[in-house]
Amino acid sequence: MFLQQLHQIKAFVFDVDGVLTDGTVHVTESGEQLRQFSIKDGYALQLAIKRGYHIIIISGGRSNGVALRLRGLGIQDIHLAAESKIDIYNEFINNNDLKAEEVIYMGDDIPDLPVMKLVGLPVCPSDAAEEIKAVSKYISPISGGKGCVRDIIEKVLKIQNKWYDPTPSAHDGSINTDETLTL
Amino acid sequence: MFLQQLHQIKAFVFDVDGVLTDGTVHVTESGEQLRQFSIKDGYALQLAIKRGYHIIIISGGRSNGVALRLRGLGIQDIHLAAESKIDIYNEFINNNDLKAEEVIYMGDDIPDLPVMKLVGLPVCPSDAAEEIKAVSKYISPISGGKGCVRDIIEKVLKIQNKWYDPTPSAHDGSINTDETLTL
Amino acid sequence: MFLQQLHQIKAFVFDVDGVLTDGTVHVTESGEQLRQFSIKDGYALQLAIKRGYHIIIISGGRSNGVALRLRGLGIQDIHLAAESKIDIYNEFINNNDLKAEEVIYMGDDIPDLPVMKLVGLPVCPSDAAEEIKAVSKYISPISGGKGCVRDIIEKVLKIQNKWYDPTPSAHDGSINTDETLTL
Amino acid sequence: MFLQQLHQIKAFVFDVDGVLTDGTVHVTESGEQLRQFSIKDGYALQLAIKRGYHIIIISGGRSNGVALRLRGLGIQDIHLAAESKIDIYNEFINNNDLKAEEVIYMGDDIPDLPVMKLVGLPVCPSDAAEEIKAVSKYISPISGGKGCVRDIIEKVLKIQNKWYDPTPSAHDGSINTDETLTL
Repeated sequence: MFLQQLHQIKAFVFDVDGVLTDGTVHVTESGEQLRQFSIKDGYALQLAIKRGYHIIIISGGRSNGVALRLRGLGIQDIHLAAESKIDIYNEFINNNDLKAEEVIYMGDDIPDLPVMKLVGLPVCPSDAAEEIKAVSKYISPISGGKGCVRDIIEKVLKIQNKWYDPTPSAHDGSINTDETLTL
Repeated sequence: MFLQQLHQIKAFVFDVDGVLTDGTVHVTESGEQLRQFSIKDGYALQLAIKRGYHIIIISGGRSNGVALRLRGLGIQDIHLAAESKIDIYNEFINNNDLKAEEVIYMGDDIPDLPVMKLVGLPVCPSDAAEEIKAVSKYISPISGGKGCVRDIIEKVLKIQNKWYDPTPSAHDGSINTDETLTL
Repeated sequence: MFLQQLHQIKAFVFDVDGVLTDGTVHVTESGEQLRQFSIKDGYALQLAIKRGYHIIIISGGRSNGVALRLRGLGIQDIHLAAESKIDIYNEFINNNDLKAEEVIYMGDDIPDLPVMKLVGLPVCPSDAAEEIKAVSKYISPISGGKGCVRDIIEKVLKIQNKWYDPTPSAHDGSINTDETLTL
Repeated sequence: MFLQQLHQIKAFVFDVDGVLTDGTVHVTESGEQLRQFSIKDGYALQLAIKRGYHIIIISGGRSNGVALRLRGLGIQDIHLAAESKIDIYNEFINNNDLKAEEVIYMGDDIPDLPVMKLVGLPVCPSDAAEEIKAVSKYISPISGGKGCVRDIIEKVLKIQNKWYDPTPSAHDGSINTDETLTL
């Protein structure tokens, strides 16, 4: 059963476009791309890191803004412009002595399909491609960029009794380094 | 009863992300974050200030753009990068001789939870986290950034007969100082 | 009857935020505000001008980007940072020898209320404030910034047999002056 | 029957605003326009090019950002600021020895209407203008900028057994030229 499998999860792998973002880009006149992230996802990612879970990002995209956003949340293991998601995934579980059943992988589109057929616990947002839904063990009721990452992290941490935090952080992942900003 | 309690409200506390914004950020290639605000919220905030209500903003985020947007609307009491929302809230009600039951607090996510358990009248947008909804005395039918702030301000001002304004301002909160812009 | 009244329309007055835009602003770190316009509205505005209708914009906001966007579509009569919408409206109908029943006014929020009580044909988007809906003779099924301006222009031009255009323009209102951009 | 006609498709013509984008523009204070594209559309466009299909873009707009986005995906035949969509379409099918029934044209608004009456297989997004829906042989269930381009490309490639790709690319169409970005 899906919920039972969450007891042993130690790591999360996330795609970027369509998972951490809503799958669109806003393009400026100079060709720059803006991507939309959820603050609620950000809270869950920060808490998972604080609790000691591994978080790894694997994306075929090559956006510097994505890297800055995710590092601002404290994520260190970020792989962009990935040629082979399978190779990066395999290296990740080997380096961290993880078993397949200890890792959740959330992807949304065809470039995630080969690796999602290999991993122990493939999951996806509500608006994933049909091929991805077909191989997923859990389809979040929430779409990409709107909290699907929060949804799966929250489920894992709750079942492992690690969700409640008496001193929650509300850091927004910005790279501004001022400690206090009372105006 | 909730509506009866609105008769004595003198102050409003608002979180930013997910309350005054829709809970997402658009991220540029340089890592800058753009946030989405509602013009209808802006009208209500300006009117509440004009009517003499206290408005205070408490956010864990540290966005300079948020500060500029809210100051453009006339809000002076803005606390960003807040480590403890409880301390700021307590200082605020003490400095202004307010009782708990005279203050509305609108938050949407776990970082608001400790303080929302203390305040007299906790409320939230329609898309708040489940934990927040559970402690709220009113759940707005409107989601964050789409008018939930307007909804609660309008309810209070209407019940206190202060909503109608014969000379409404349509200032959009921009920081442009030109007085006339007829083109 | 509403549709019968459209036969005599010669002019359109539009508010900006919540009518020509979706009523939100995206705010950058430097406090700059971005607004969202509909391309379908743009097509209708260009066609109405081509057909000889008066188009006038009256807004309390003071966005330079709004002015540039609307001028790019060919609109010349743009009033921003308006202190009194009534004065501008009265001057407009006097200068152009228009009767009240020849003018449509589309607004969405309280700052439009005083003038909308005076005009001949007040209309609004589907997501207008309740006070505005109460005085409107037509509530578009479409919300602000999503085509409500197109909806009312299309209704007028169709009933006056001026909607069909054998050589439609697809100019997007950008201020780029290059005539050809084949890449 | 519509699906049978897809067997002979060799080329796709796409409008930009309302087809490849969601039909809105975000306007900055300096008048710059940002447009929203779907990453899922981007994947399908890249795959169609890899499979040897002709892709041509014809738009009345004149956005440099649109050109950069689409070239980043590998599209070479991009016509902006088009005065006559019919002339560009005719030149395209003549230069490439294509028959009308081998070409799909997806448009959404009146400027597409004259050419869509001529082409073999006119199609449109779910939110196209009524006039466009009336002449379309297929109305995608998906709206502009949200995957309607993916929908029609996927249908054609699947019926021609060219959709499955064992080595899918996840390039996001950005113009960053770094090959690896592991951080």
